[in-house]
Amino acid sequence: MRAVVKPAPEAGLQVTEVPEPRPGARDVLIRVHAAGVCGTDLHIWEWDSWAAGRLRPPVVVGHEFAGEVVALGPEAEAEGIFAVGDLVTAEGHIVCHDCIPCRTGNAHLCVRTQIIGVDRDGAFADLIAMPASNVMKLDGIPTDIGAIMDPVGNGVHTALEGGDVTGATALVIGCGPIGCFAAGVLRAAGASLVLASDFNPTRRALAAGIGAHRVLDPGSEDVVAIARELTGGIGVDLVCEMSGHPAGHATAFAAARPGGRVNLLGTPSRTTEVDFARDIIFKGLTLYGVTGRRMYQTWITMRRLIGAGAFDPSPIITHRFPLEGIADAIGVIKAGTAGKVILEINR
Amino acid sequence: MRAVVKPAPEAGLQVTEVPEPRPGARDVLIRVHAAGVCGTDLHIWEWDSWAAGRLRPPVVVGHEFAGEVVALGPEAEAEGIFAVGDLVTAEGHIVCHDCIPCRTGNAHLCVRTQIIGVDRDGAFADLIAMPASNVMKLDGIPTDIGAIMDPVGNGVHTALEGGDVTGATALVIGCGPIGCFAAGVLRAAGASLVLASDFNPTRRALAAGIGAHRVLDPGSEDVVAIARELTGGIGVDLVCEMSGHPAGHATAFAAARPGGRVNLLGTPSRTTEVDFARDIIFKGLTLYGVTGRRMYQTWITMRRLIGAGAFDPSPIITHRFPLEGIADAIGVIKAGTAGKVILEINR
Amino acid sequence: MRAVVKPAPEAGLQVTEVPEPRPGARDVLIRVHAAGVCGTDLHIWEWDSWAAGRLRPPVVVGHEFAGEVVALGPEAEAEGIFAVGDLVTAEGHIVCHDCIPCRTGNAHLCVRTQIIGVDRDGAFADLIAMPASNVMKLDGIPTDIGAIMDPVGNGVHTALEGGDVTGATALVIGCGPIGCFAAGVLRAAGASLVLASDFNPTRRALAAGIGAHRVLDPGSEDVVAIARELTGGIGVDLVCEMSGHPAGHATAFAAARPGGRVNLLGTPSRTTEVDFARDIIFKGLTLYGVTGRRMYQTWITMRRLIGAGAFDPSPIITHRFPLEGIADAIGVIKAGTAGKVILEINR
Amino acid sequence: MRAVVKPAPEAGLQVTEVPEPRPGARDVLIRVHAAGVCGTDLHIWEWDSWAAGRLRPPVVVGHEFAGEVVALGPEAEAEGIFAVGDLVTAEGHIVCHDCIPCRTGNAHLCVRTQIIGVDRDGAFADLIAMPASNVMKLDGIPTDIGAIMDPVGNGVHTALEGGDVTGATALVIGCGPIGCFAAGVLRAAGASLVLASDFNPTRRALAAGIGAHRVLDPGSEDVVAIARELTGGIGVDLVCEMSGHPAGHATAFAAARPGGRVNLLGTPSRTTEVDFARDIIFKGLTLYGVTGRRMYQTWITMRRLIGAGAFDPSPIITHRFPLEGIADAIGVIKAGTAGKVILEINR
Repeated sequence: MRAVVKPAPEAGLQVTEVPEPRPGARDVLIRVHAAGVCGTDLHIWEWDSWAAGRLRPPVVVGHEFAGEVVALGPEAEAEGIFAVGDLVTAEGHIVCHDCIPCRTGNAHLCVRTQIIGVDRDGAFADLIAMPASNVMKLDGIPTDIGAIMDPVGNGVHTALEGGDVTGATALVIGCGPIGCFAAGVLRAAGASLVLASDFNPTRRALAAGIGAHRVLDPGSEDVVAIARELTGGIGVDLVCEMSGHPAGHATAFAAARPGGRVNLLGTPSRTTEVDFARDIIFKGLTLYGVTGRRMYQTWITMRRLIGAGAFDPSPIITHRFPLEGIADAIGVIKAGTAGKVILEINR
Repeated sequence: MRAVVKPAPEAGLQVTEVPEPRPGARDVLIRVHAAGVCGTDLHIWEWDSWAAGRLRPPVVVGHEFAGEVVALGPEAEAEGIFAVGDLVTAEGHIVCHDCIPCRTGNAHLCVRTQIIGVDRDGAFADLIAMPASNVMKLDGIPTDIGAIMDPVGNGVHTALEGGDVTGATALVIGCGPIGCFAAGVLRAAGASLVLASDFNPTRRALAAGIGAHRVLDPGSEDVVAIARELTGGIGVDLVCEMSGHPAGHATAFAAARPGGRVNLLGTPSRTTEVDFARDIIFKGLTLYGVTGRRMYQTWITMRRLIGAGAFDPSPIITHRFPLEGIADAIGVIKAGTAGKVILEINR
Repeated sequence: MRAVVKPAPEAGLQVTEVPEPRPGARDVLIRVHAAGVCGTDLHIWEWDSWAAGRLRPPVVVGHEFAGEVVALGPEAEAEGIFAVGDLVTAEGHIVCHDCIPCRTGNAHLCVRTQIIGVDRDGAFADLIAMPASNVMKLDGIPTDIGAIMDPVGNGVHTALEGGDVTGATALVIGCGPIGCFAAGVLRAAGASLVLASDFNPTRRALAAGIGAHRVLDPGSEDVVAIARELTGGIGVDLVCEMSGHPAGHATAFAAARPGGRVNLLGTPSRTTEVDFARDIIFKGLTLYGVTGRRMYQTWITMRRLIGAGAFDPSPIITHRFPLEGIADAIGVIKAGTAGKVILEINR
Repeated sequence: MRAVVKPAPEAGLQVTEVPEPRPGARDVLIRVHAAGVCGTDLHIWEWDSWAAGRLRPPVVVGHEFAGEVVALGPEAEAEGIFAVGDLVTAEGHIVCHDCIPCRTGNAHLCVRTQIIGVDRDGAFADLIAMPASNVMKLDGIPTDIGAIMDPVGNGVHTALEGGDVTGATALVIGCGPIGCFAAGVLRAAGASLVLASDFNPTRRALAAGIGAHRVLDPGSEDVVAIARELTGGIGVDLVCEMSGHPAGHATAFAAARPGGRVNLLGTPSRTTEVDFARDIIFKGLTLYGVTGRRMYQTWITMRRLIGAGAFDPSPIITHRFPLEGIADAIGVIKAGTAGKVILEINR
């Protein structure tokens, strides 16, 4: 079958033929219809220090996808949950089900997590085998949308963790695809004020289109001052920090109200100087680090929001390429002008 | 000034002249623009056993209102929060600030609660004096809407207590004004399925208009079966029980999914036979009794939802009368054809 | 191997030889050291309507046990979590891992739950095969205690659900073994007042011994009045209702403070008349139905409490019998004089 | 009356005569029996940059105290809650009751907070006037203990925020008085492992005496390695960071398990470099900044824990001085050899 492979410990990716995966007893074999290209895939392409430290080539990359069930292992078949022909997506974190996080509602923090497309073969391919327990039926959601439910789920997790979003005031810092999804979910959840800031005008336009009440340019506007002005001087209830930049952290802590919350998803590449006294302790802030998606509350919430039409992530999809266009896909992401980029694999 | 008064321990209400209230040191004097008429006022009119056991005539009735600040007691003035001319509404529960509920976030359950229009003079009058700490600025919300924020707050409290409404499935049993408000708030909060049931077609139409995805007639439809069918057979995450009828309780417990939640606001006039084993224990349900509005989280959430346009309660207002039309107002409520009924007092 | 079997749809149990179970691929085979006898086993012995409606004889009974791993299925072995010789106990609810409750932190409410000793062969036998994912290492806890962690977990679940027990005031209604465990856990969690009531003086003595500050006899004392008197007139923060009697429900609702919580575990055999207005709604109570144990937060908390010596359930064990003494074990339970009764099977 | 006064913007404190305070209408006048000396008082003595930026001399210092009601303002008297002769302590944060934090359960983060002994006259004096709403009856707790309930409350707030402490594993970093109180409260709440670390052997001994299972010397022991070793390799559920040092922060983030919690109370005097990716985001940590005490859940919990004998803070009191001994009290605190230091004022 066709697959996008990291063949060796060096930059670049290769479209090549590889053997078809064989589903284990509890696996589901899925023909991939569409797959999302993520910033992580750009790190893998560029073979940065994170990628070099984690991947063991050769590996098929790609972790966001949706497709059609084409075969089942015997135990998966016996369970009777999935059948050939089902349209599905899947959680890409394969977890142990045994560690303390797994056993206490934090499986997304499993200490033995294996991520598809990183630690084992992934989804930029004609076929992928997944444990049935990671697979989710699409229930009528198109596979285009199913292909990006992994990052939409990051947005849902960031927007909704900590509860009480309805009527709340919020600021999203960084309007990449996940930031845009968070902004849209906050609006769908009844947030009374959704601010979104990004230096990039294309991204600001995407955020505005998906539901931000107001978008801000930190290059020319004082984000903290505006956040305070629009909240009676006190600051916002919730900040979703999606930029990973020290400046984003500073803005987040300053813009949150006393007793507010900062959910951090943007992955920094370096450390941040934090004034814990002024910014966290005296303000009584709660910070929360967002990894992945809650398994499976986030997926269920997301599937319902999309299925009910309460939230539509599709306006964030800006580019589509065939599997063979992976280099072009990586290129538009690198250029910073893309929203979400999709590979159309078997349609 | 003019006021609607219960003059003696018997049925009926009288529109009459009474002395103007004099604000205490920490009070705000408010000229009432509009006031909402509540089912409670019907009980008071009819002098049922509850009313006879609680009110001590003569008392000015009415507890839902909005108006304009016309004077302040010296301490209220010194605080600097309110000024003459401010448009405001108010929480009608006057609480002690000292008991365990008051001191632990449950002031709406204060053991020394005094309710305006019930335990002390109320709002169906030209003027009312309220403790400044009970008063809320309208921040641009019209006084018509301000006049019904008390029952809207009941709906917000019922819909949002327990969290996690975004993406959830819900059933509202009983589509009186508060049930309709709950349905609309659930929709505004991103619930993926809002069912609403009532025997009365007028009320079903109001619920549909404010946001229920589907309205059900328990007289001709199997509410539990439909709730299960629309939720993959499992039942809804949340039931808002607004009817107070034993049949409503039975439907609520049967329609909620295992691990689900039933928030009960409808006040029964008699007891209900409950099968705790089958309905509560084996299903792992959570039940919550809704009294009033959280002081003041509910008010803040409500003011923001309305102010941001995320939720508009105005379609539920079906009738308007002058203060002198109190008998007519009570009449349309008794007839069961009304949504929310407003007295226009000083406009 | 030896086993206690319900051979036919009629009263009684039989100690007999049955074939040894063969572990499936993901199973662990356990030699049973000790097993707890539960009220459920009494229902099964007596073949009451619940038992007749649920069990399909022949079935090996017993669902509370601990023992030693003697073999593993190939997948269970490959996981590397358990090894031959490990001392273990197990959660007796076998769940589907796929339904909404399973996927949202409520696996104890799985819609496809199979209970060992009820829906499939159980633990009153020399050997039992269990899915590895249901097995818990004892980590130094003796198998005597391991044999009763199922009901101890019921007590932990009832005592701790809803949080904030530290410093709280509580009333346990019904001092059977699970009620006693709940009382002890509340004390271990820092509850400032633990009241426990039971008509039976033996049970009151057990409750006092394990940590209740004061035990009450509802036959001669006014439980509600005393609960209020000892809480400044307001009532207790938490009631654990373990009796299942309508009188217990009435006491629970009356003894809980406004804004308080009633966790219900006692399984009623008939309905209860509830005054929802007075008892639940105007008091703002939260009710929660307790089924089983949270999988697996309850087990982890319990194992740590016992392992650390913060809570010791052993004083509640009053009787021990060999496997062949099952009739005597049922007898002392039926007589109402027992605390927890254990079968010593392979020691 | 006698009082310890900061007379001018410079180092030192002066014991002098000042006019007696006159209680306002809603105030209670209290004769101080005992008062606790805090690290904050040391900052004020030394007139560091924080003190110089905040205090406006002359001001009576001291914010931790207990004493006897000797007079009431007319409104406080009318409320009937306090009477002359009551033994009381008080929350030292005077709040506005109107801002968003005040109105949503975070009054300890009031944007208009005035702290006694800092922003207005305090408690190192014969008499202090306090708003009745800040006063708490001691209900039998001795005034010695009442005098330190402010810092005990800091410990309770840090230990219990986030819930689920029962059975949990915890690490307290920094064993000053508040760290010791947190360790003792964690033990009282049923934590299964309470580690406490401090460089100072006196402080480690105090922590061990009040309930830590094991004390650690970060000067000679690898705190993170030991925390992991004692928790099956995963790290502790909760870290209470009381040191305020960057090294304490690093230890906290490394010692917490994935999905764990770090409650930060120690006030840093400088910034900390934080690796948000490694330490917060990929671990899914929750951080919470602790200011003051929850008003008034913390006080109620604390009063009950102490009143029930579940937690006794008295072993942490190491020194007692008369009011005139303030310089000696400051001296022992500065020497770092003290636990809690008390001024005995009117006994």
